[in-house]
Amino acid sequence: MSIEATDRSRTPPIGVTYRRVDYSEIDQMGVVYHARYLVWLDVARTELLRDTGVSYRELEEMGLYLVVSEANLRYRQPARYDDLVRVRCWVRELASRRITFGYAVEHDATNRLLVTATTSLIVLNHDFSLARLPDQVASRLISIPDPVRL
Amino acid sequence: MSIEATDRSRTPPIGVTYRRVDYSEIDQMGVVYHARYLVWLDVARTELLRDTGVSYRELEEMGLYLVVSEANLRYRQPARYDDLVRVRCWVRELASRRITFGYAVEHDATNRLLVTATTSLIVLNHDFSLARLPDQVASRLISIPDPVRL
Amino acid sequence: MSIEATDRSRTPPIGVTYRRVDYSEIDQMGVVYHARYLVWLDVARTELLRDTGVSYRELEEMGLYLVVSEANLRYRQPARYDDLVRVRCWVRELASRRITFGYAVEHDATNRLLVTATTSLIVLNHDFSLARLPDQVASRLISIPDPVRL
Amino acid sequence: MSIEATDRSRTPPIGVTYRRVDYSEIDQMGVVYHARYLVWLDVARTELLRDTGVSYRELEEMGLYLVVSEANLRYRQPARYDDLVRVRCWVRELASRRITFGYAVEHDATNRLLVTATTSLIVLNHDFSLARLPDQVASRLISIPDPVRL
Repeated sequence: MSIEATDRSRTPPIGVTYRRVDYSEIDQMGVVYHARYLVWLDVARTELLRDTGVSYRELEEMGLYLVVSEANLRYRQPARYDDLVRVRCWVRELASRRITFGYAVEHDATNRLLVTATTSLIVLNHDFSLARLPDQVASRLISIPDPVRL
Repeated sequence: MSIEATDRSRTPPIGVTYRRVDYSEIDQMGVVYHARYLVWLDVARTELLRDTGVSYRELEEMGLYLVVSEANLRYRQPARYDDLVRVRCWVRELASRRITFGYAVEHDATNRLLVTATTSLIVLNHDFSLARLPDQVASRLISIPDPVRL
Repeated sequence: MSIEATDRSRTPPIGVTYRRVDYSEIDQMGVVYHARYLVWLDVARTELLRDTGVSYRELEEMGLYLVVSEANLRYRQPARYDDLVRVRCWVRELASRRITFGYAVEHDATNRLLVTATTSLIVLNHDFSLARLPDQVASRLISIPDPVRL
Repeated sequence: MSIEATDRSRTPPIGVTYRRVDYSEIDQMGVVYHARYLVWLDVARTELLRDTGVSYRELEEMGLYLVVSEANLRYRQPARYDDLVRVRCWVRELASRRITFGYAVEHDATNRLLVTATTSLIVLNHDFSLARLPDQVASRLISIPDPVRL
């Protein structure tokens, strides 16, 4: 994994969240319904953001919204009921008004790669006009080379 | 059905909505996941309310919220993928600050009764203090004898 | 809390699960959408069951299903985005073919009681005929006095 | 719209489904939560498929599954509570083992374009090995030029 090889002092943050697949997430094929992964990605970037010191809840309290403008998912292997999955999340690209996150969803026990994805979010004010991410947040969300080939 | 037998001039409204069960609603038993019915009931009472001439969207624009304070569901028969289901909804009890709705979810093709339910809602202001339902709405939501025994 | 006072040797299991409210669970009132709690209850009883030594996944692999036949919820206080909530779950009644669980959903930081609920589940075979819960599971799910008044 | 201009005798099917945005679909920004659109796309292609004479339910009864392998969404304008939206769906590309659908989600009253998307699905057997779409279905799902620029 290339991220392992980079200079530790420069390693940008990768958020890692875990979740156990619950019954409501499974469809009649016995696998996680494909829309559900978008929620997992949302939670993963929320936790990554929390690590910057400003949570998404606090951003909204400041009158800023991060709104998904694009989402791209590749489904590789299915997850099943009661599986423990790991969602890794990092910043791929950071501009003043737009952030692109990368994600890898993995099966915890086997390390199998289940889903890779990217989502782009724009920063909006309460009146839905374009806004800028606060510097204190932006400086903590440094773009990194993808640790996983999409 | 007793409602058929009542005096037409006094017949209170029963809302009827139809929906086709979609793939996201089915779990790995091959039946509708039980939490999903609460959404169907929500849609059913929204349509019943719309028939009064004031939609729920308009109520919220007036600064009023209807908040679920209690829900009781009995699951009798399962619905399956792609089934067409019918949700009937009526007012069981109407007080100034609380409405109780009754529901019957039925399989359209066979008329089998799938789920019966009641939900109670309270009327709140934007600051979550108790409020009253506008008279024009309340007067249209007349309590009726249950068309289905729960 | 009365459960604290009971003889430790007889203390029946109470499952405790924690979850952080995610963005997908919140509606435009800014509170958790009421249907969502049923999923949290499902996860809570799954974890309680896991503590018996036979997980629900294993029950299904044995050809047994636990199907919700009744659900009753009282919504007392709302949960909000990013709140940490605690779901306590216990067995209220245990018969050979039917289990009733009790639940208390609480706000972790303040201990405020948010929702109380019960759900009854029946045991079914793969062909949806009534079945019995295996003794090894039933003996671990001992009925207890409600730790919370519903 | 270019599709209007094509030779009627060759016009390939475009499925059109309508839905009213319900309360469960809205987040605390007051707009449809982004994951929800994937369910709407699923329903739209299900209805397009139904028009071929073989419903997705029937495909599954034949032991065939259509599994999403890729999804790409661009969110352009938000939909709000109680809005009536229109989902148009067509086949962009059809191979023996893979179908790519295109979608345009539009606000019915204003015709504003809300979301454009594509999803690719692969055909699998019950044992999750690759399979072929039945000829009777494939021949009805003819690739067409995109009616909407993505």
